Amino acid sequence: VAKRLEKFKTTIFTQMSILAVKHGAINLGQGFPNFDGPDFVKEAAIQAIKDGKNQYARGYGIPQLNSAIAARFREDTGLVVDPEKEVTVTSGCTEAIAAAMLGLINPGDEVILFAPFYDSYEATLSMAGAKIKGITLRPPDFSIPLDELKAAVTNKTRAILMNTPHNPTGKMFTREELETIASLCTENDVLVFSDEVYDKLAFEMDHISIASLPGMYERTVTMNSLGKTFSLTGWKIGWAIAPPHLTWGVRQAHSYLTFATSTPAQWAAVAALKAPESYFNELKRDYAAKKEILVKGLKEVGFKVFPSSGTYFVTADHTAFGLENDVAFCEYLIEEVGVVAIPTSVFYLNPEEGKNLVRFAFCKDEETLRGAIERMKQKL
Amino acid sequence: VAKRLEKFKTTIFTQMSILAVKHGAINLGQGFPNFDGPDFVKEAAIQAIKDGKNQYARGYGIPQLNSAIAARFREDTGLVVDPEKEVTVTSGCTEAIAAAMLGLINPGDEVILFAPFYDSYEATLSMAGAKIKGITLRPPDFSIPLDELKAAVTNKTRAILMNTPHNPTGKMFTREELETIASLCTENDVLVFSDEVYDKLAFEMDHISIASLPGMYERTVTMNSLGKTFSLTGWKIGWAIAPPHLTWGVRQAHSYLTFATSTPAQWAAVAALKAPESYFNELKRDYAAKKEILVKGLKEVGFKVFPSSGTYFVTADHTAFGLENDVAFCEYLIEEVGVVAIPTSVFYLNPEEGKNLVRFAFCKDEETLRGAIERMKQKL
Ligand SMILES: CSCCC(=O)C(=O)O
Ligand SMILES: CSCCC(=O)C(=O)O
Repeated sequence: VAKRLEKFKTTIFTQMSILAVKHGAINLGQGFPNFDGPDFVKEAAIQAIKDGKNQYARGYGIPQLNSAIAARFREDTGLVVDPEKEVTVTSGCTEAIAAAMLGLINPGDEVILFAPFYDSYEATLSMAGAKIKGITLRPPDFSIPLDELKAAVTNKTRAILMNTPHNPTGKMFTREELETIASLCTENDVLVFSDEVYDKLAFEMDHISIASLPGMYERTVTMNSLGKTFSLTGWKIGWAIAPPHLTWGVRQAHSYLTFATSTPAQWAAVAALKAPESYFNELKRDYAAKKEILVKGLKEVGFKVFPSSGTYFVTADHTAFGLENDVAFCEYLIEEVGVVAIPTSVFYLNPEEGKNLVRFAFCKDEETLRGAIERMKQKL
Repeated sequence: VAKRLEKFKTTIFTQMSILAVKHGAINLGQGFPNFDGPDFVKEAAIQAIKDGKNQYARGYGIPQLNSAIAARFREDTGLVVDPEKEVTVTSGCTEAIAAAMLGLINPGDEVILFAPFYDSYEATLSMAGAKIKGITLRPPDFSIPLDELKAAVTNKTRAILMNTPHNPTGKMFTREELETIASLCTENDVLVFSDEVYDKLAFEMDHISIASLPGMYERTVTMNSLGKTFSLTGWKIGWAIAPPHLTWGVRQAHSYLTFATSTPAQWAAVAALKAPESYFNELKRDYAAKKEILVKGLKEVGFKVFPSSGTYFVTADHTAFGLENDVAFCEYLIEEVGVVAIPTSVFYLNPEEGKNLVRFAFCKDEETLRGAIERMKQKL
């Protein structure tokens, strides 16, 4: 294996989903729904396949999808972007992240990363040769230590990689935090890579795209995807929105990482993004109910549960159950209890910082959530 | 844009396909069929979508597809591989190439590349920081200059990146050439990355996978895809087959480039790879007929056409028409004649070497091929 990837293990999501199957455990680990996406989107994909839309798409996206993405972004943020020059369709947000790092970061560039983080951030920064500076978000509220952040941003900083609503903690960046980031970035000429795949799963407050703050659009790559919002995580449609000079870098890397993305899935994404507001409201209502079931249940089991205002994850402190660390706890939970959660230490530059925390996903039907709670009540 | 991608332009396929649409030109440029893939594969995708197979696949492939890929490889090469440890499903062969380079090549590693080459090879080697040594295949037969190759391989060589049947020339590597590569690799401990996406489009001789030569499997990453063989280039299902120690590197990069590949398309690929031999025979027969129409037509138009024994491309010398170079010729061809071909200079480390050559694709229905010939006869 090349040195740039030497320190990384098999991604925790793959490990845990394989263990879930092996032990017949209830999987509250990897973030995928155990229910299906909406029929109108599935129908659109089927129609595209039947209509023979099965050859290479234009590399950066079929024009109709670039336009639909721009229209939705405008509705969500008020920003008007050129679908032809500022939108790139990618094979999931994971590819958008890789393309942004490989297309815009040079070896030795300093990039600030908030821990805990989705594991691909560190790996793709490593592929790009970035020098990573970590800022840790700490329980109970995982707010940004603004003084630490201010001290970390210097004129050597090339970019900040952020994620709101935040996986794994469920934290949403507040307007005050975003404004601080924005002023640090404009003052120090720093780029922002913002992963906003959970933007439609914002329960306690409205999601704010950092690109919508004054002076920020021109220095931000906003990344999103279809998977979480439309419960179709297996379709792998993502995108990056950025001003033309940044889009150029993203597209160059994308061209040579995957070239183009599934054509019929892109046609389905066009239909999806035109969903009425009622679709998004219902999604949020459904997830709020699921969250309540999981949070209440975990508390009854005896976890200390930290508030989650967005995403479909909650983070909890497992130390009441006496296991040595998060990995040992999750092993016990799979093998003895029959439930899968994700240990969070893999999401930190320093694994020690995550050793008390585990993440549970609530993108599951209510019976599954109740079944998992029941097992934990009986066996933990 | 990051330095690793600075020298690359918008990929020629994107440029040319956009120009084709703009000028209403007949597109014999980018290699995608203008007819549809087989119904049994499309039906399998539709069924998978209807059956709710719409969430994240296992990162390295659904078990059924890994098995189907291993079974087909065994049928094609006689090699028995472990689907769980030696097969990785990727988002097209383009991603397999990127994952192999980023997962296995370190900055400064020397890699040998045959020119002309599919443009992603140079770009992904650049992303990996490789030091590229080019060996040029020259008309009329584009055979490997074996003495040059022998002189180029040293104990500093990390890998050879090859492609047979070869895009853009249609050359197929002969057994003698493959044996020379094999002995150089075993003697000097060199890896091989072999792109074999056109393996089922081999007209004049049988395709030989270099992995099947003695001592080679353990040092080879064999890459292939669904798109060309099943006329579904827009579905983006590819794979890499390699011994476990090399698969580890490929999978690590793949995990963080795209994580996983479209789940319903993977189910369809399972159905596709179980196609009876008659499917592959018919495909080859159909393409042989198309090739004959194109080659005959191009000769009548006045091109010097080089023999193509595989792929769905032919390369021709355009100098009889008096244009300055391949790019000028292709511009004239699009704007004045209404036909798109691909200039080949972009496929060389030294663009000068390709200035007399253009590539035509014959993955088009006969009417389209005849229409293009007709236009060229009238206006060239
Ligand atoms: C490939 S897993 C993608 C992210 C996610 O869904 C998770 O964090 O579980
Ligand atoms: C993305 S284009 C892939 C290769 C090909 O089809 C071509 O060479 O035209």
